[in-house]
Amino acid sequence: VSAPVVRVTRTYRFAAAHRLHAAALSADENREIFGKCNNPFGHGHNYLVEVAFRGAVDASTGRAADPPALDRLIAEQVLAPFHHANLNEDVPEFRGTVPTTENLALVIERRLRAHWKPVFGEHGPALDYVRVQETKNNKFQTTGR
Amino acid sequence: VSAPVVRVTRTYRFAAAHRLHAAALSADENREIFGKCNNPFGHGHNYLVEVAFRGAVDASTGRAADPPALDRLIAEQVLAPFHHANLNEDVPEFRGTVPTTENLALVIERRLRAHWKPVFGEHGPALDYVRVQETKNNKFQTTGR
Amino acid sequence: VSAPVVRVTRTYRFAAAHRLHAAALSADENREIFGKCNNPFGHGHNYLVEVAFRGAVDASTGRAADPPALDRLIAEQVLAPFHHANLNEDVPEFRGTVPTTENLALVIERRLRAHWKPVFGEHGPALDYVRVQETKNNKFQTTGR
Amino acid sequence: VSAPVVRVTRTYRFAAAHRLHAAALSADENREIFGKCNNPFGHGHNYLVEVAFRGAVDASTGRAADPPALDRLIAEQVLAPFHHANLNEDVPEFRGTVPTTENLALVIERRLRAHWKPVFGEHGPALDYVRVQETKNNKFQTTGR
Amino acid sequence: VSAPVVRVTRTYRFAAAHRLHAAALSADENREIFGKCNNPFGHGHNYLVEVAFRGAVDASTGRAADPPALDRLIAEQVLAPFHHANLNEDVPEFRGTVPTTENLALVIERRLRAHWKPVFGEHGPALDYVRVQETKNNKFQTTGR
Amino acid sequence: VSAPVVRVTRTYRFAAAHRLHAAALSADENREIFGKCNNPFGHGHNYLVEVAFRGAVDASTGRAADPPALDRLIAEQVLAPFHHANLNEDVPEFRGTVPTTENLALVIERRLRAHWKPVFGEHGPALDYVRVQETKNNKFQTTGR
Repeated sequence: VSAPVVRVTRTYRFAAAHRLHAAALSADENREIFGKCNNPFGHGHNYLVEVAFRGAVDASTGRAADPPALDRLIAEQVLAPFHHANLNEDVPEFRGTVPTTENLALVIERRLRAHWKPVFGEHGPALDYVRVQETKNNKFQTTGR
Repeated sequence: VSAPVVRVTRTYRFAAAHRLHAAALSADENREIFGKCNNPFGHGHNYLVEVAFRGAVDASTGRAADPPALDRLIAEQVLAPFHHANLNEDVPEFRGTVPTTENLALVIERRLRAHWKPVFGEHGPALDYVRVQETKNNKFQTTGR
Repeated sequence: VSAPVVRVTRTYRFAAAHRLHAAALSADENREIFGKCNNPFGHGHNYLVEVAFRGAVDASTGRAADPPALDRLIAEQVLAPFHHANLNEDVPEFRGTVPTTENLALVIERRLRAHWKPVFGEHGPALDYVRVQETKNNKFQTTGR
Repeated sequence: VSAPVVRVTRTYRFAAAHRLHAAALSADENREIFGKCNNPFGHGHNYLVEVAFRGAVDASTGRAADPPALDRLIAEQVLAPFHHANLNEDVPEFRGTVPTTENLALVIERRLRAHWKPVFGEHGPALDYVRVQETKNNKFQTTGR
Repeated sequence: VSAPVVRVTRTYRFAAAHRLHAAALSADENREIFGKCNNPFGHGHNYLVEVAFRGAVDASTGRAADPPALDRLIAEQVLAPFHHANLNEDVPEFRGTVPTTENLALVIERRLRAHWKPVFGEHGPALDYVRVQETKNNKFQTTGR
Repeated sequence: VSAPVVRVTRTYRFAAAHRLHAAALSADENREIFGKCNNPFGHGHNYLVEVAFRGAVDASTGRAADPPALDRLIAEQVLAPFHHANLNEDVPEFRGTVPTTENLALVIERRLRAHWKPVFGEHGPALDYVRVQETKNNKFQTTGR
């Protein structure tokens, strides 16, 4: 019989500033679409990032993945560049892309997918989705589509 | 390539009273099935409603939907009729239907589906599910079946 | 040297309905003062009650009070009468008194003080205050004045 | 038409000790894999268990399942054996199996599945998954695979 | 007998950006004292503001204060100027003052005290303190000294 | 004029095992007083420690204390010895003292007071109290008496 598969989610936090402003739109359109989120000097949030993956539970260790390996990957790809940063100014992916939380979730997922196999191997756990919480009333989850 | 799809969940809150009592059952049956939730004068909860939908992320705005449009729909269809209300007495759908949280989730989903397309259009985001939390230990989610 | 004193807080939960309506005021005044909380059929909340007391830490047991004794007192004086109840209809203290959360905190404190000494003894812990949370954005704490 | 199906999740809590140590591995390997979680005398957590099931909403009662029946099953199969226990020493399934939260979720699901049909019947609600939260930053969910 | 006094706390939320940088200090000193919080383009938080006041419970209404009056005061003095704002750029009090959460709590308290009596009257409730939460692990409370 | 004083609270977390057992009492007395918390192999919790202090807000930095200095003190005196530990076996203060949360709060406060002045200086912030949360329904706060 094959090993049972468990979905694991680990949660991380960072604090960042952002401004919602689309370069392709006029000042009026930006104001109409984004409201106060378009304020010139930006605002910010305590973001919460949930990383979900599925892995077979190893019969001897009882683990579906090596948590320190994931923590290091997140520290390098998410916390170092995003914590205490201004998303518009400090994160290359947001030059020319509006740092909505939809896009933030997609950017984080792309960064994790790019480094996932080198870290966890061909037969390791599979990344399921990334979910970013902007405030406790707003969550944005990637769907792999 | 098509735009990436993100699942968004937004959370709303309302406070309401209800009494669990099935008209088709005897007083004893009601007492046995619903226990103290059948108390004649009712009790109440701080309900939390999570609305989940999926939408393609617009390349220029970075958004999967227009949040104020959803907020207005919820204000009109959920908060105005349910907040500070008695579900049994004030909400037409619960004349003759027990206001369990199962039924509450189904009623809210039906109200949102009835107005979804007129608000978001044919090609807009798709409503996924409604989840209602009665206490932090109890959640009820529609499944579309 | 005397034993160190620790303040202990224990939290309890109950779900109840209420309607804010002052008998001495006109319908219009009630509507103006209480807004939607004056709705005729009431609404409800998941209330959270925090009981704070101070006690000397017993050198042999390391405890400032006997938790089961407090739990029994709360079960009898608060949970049995208030959980799944309608405060206006089911609780004697609210015949003629508006069941605001201010008054709810005062009523609970009075009930606990009336039974405190018989349960905990002359030299037992001292009740500090009762704090009631109506929603996570509203808390009401007695002050002993 | 058939009755609508709702997914219900109920949450339970227990406090337990555990030590992560794989009998098949050396002391050094254990230390390397589990870090401080391998400390000889163990540590502990406030675990939170979420049980998710799907059931057709009964037209007369408005319920997808009988909550007291589930509460009794959980009390017997989870809370009685695990609350205030040492998982390594007190739970038979963890003799020879590392009590990681992955394995804890699998053990709880197996216990519930073994008693599910006798409690809820052939046509009752279907157990979906068990999710165990070890800390608020770590969750482990069974997948039925 | 005089009316019993209750302490009420109401909680509000806003999202803002800030940068910790003291004009009187060198770049190196700023970097050493504030670390990543000194990043040139700033970062941000979901701030939570708790306003605590004490008031006599009115015998006829059962209230210690008029909640809508407080909500309007906070909307005008805190939410309008601070929500979706950059504290350094958009709030006059932070020209020349570092927008630490210590100073943020002091500024909010000063704004409320300046308008308290005109709103609540000479015999109304008394403002106790303002507490600002920057992240769930950090809270800053004024002391009136 | 003197600088305004702000109360700051910072929160830390650790996971530990403990067993409530008083050496001076018989097995039956222990069982009666501590119930299941007296189970021979112990159980555990995710503890949350809140450290509250008061400090004058520095006019140039806007800070009441140096957060990294406090974080280092807590890491050394609380997290290193208590996180992932068994309080009864691994912490010297609990040889002969029951590791109730009352005593845990007192032990942590004593450790912090012993190192407070060397870290923060004669004129630095003053430690107010230590509050330990065992579960979200139980908190224990030192009172300096």
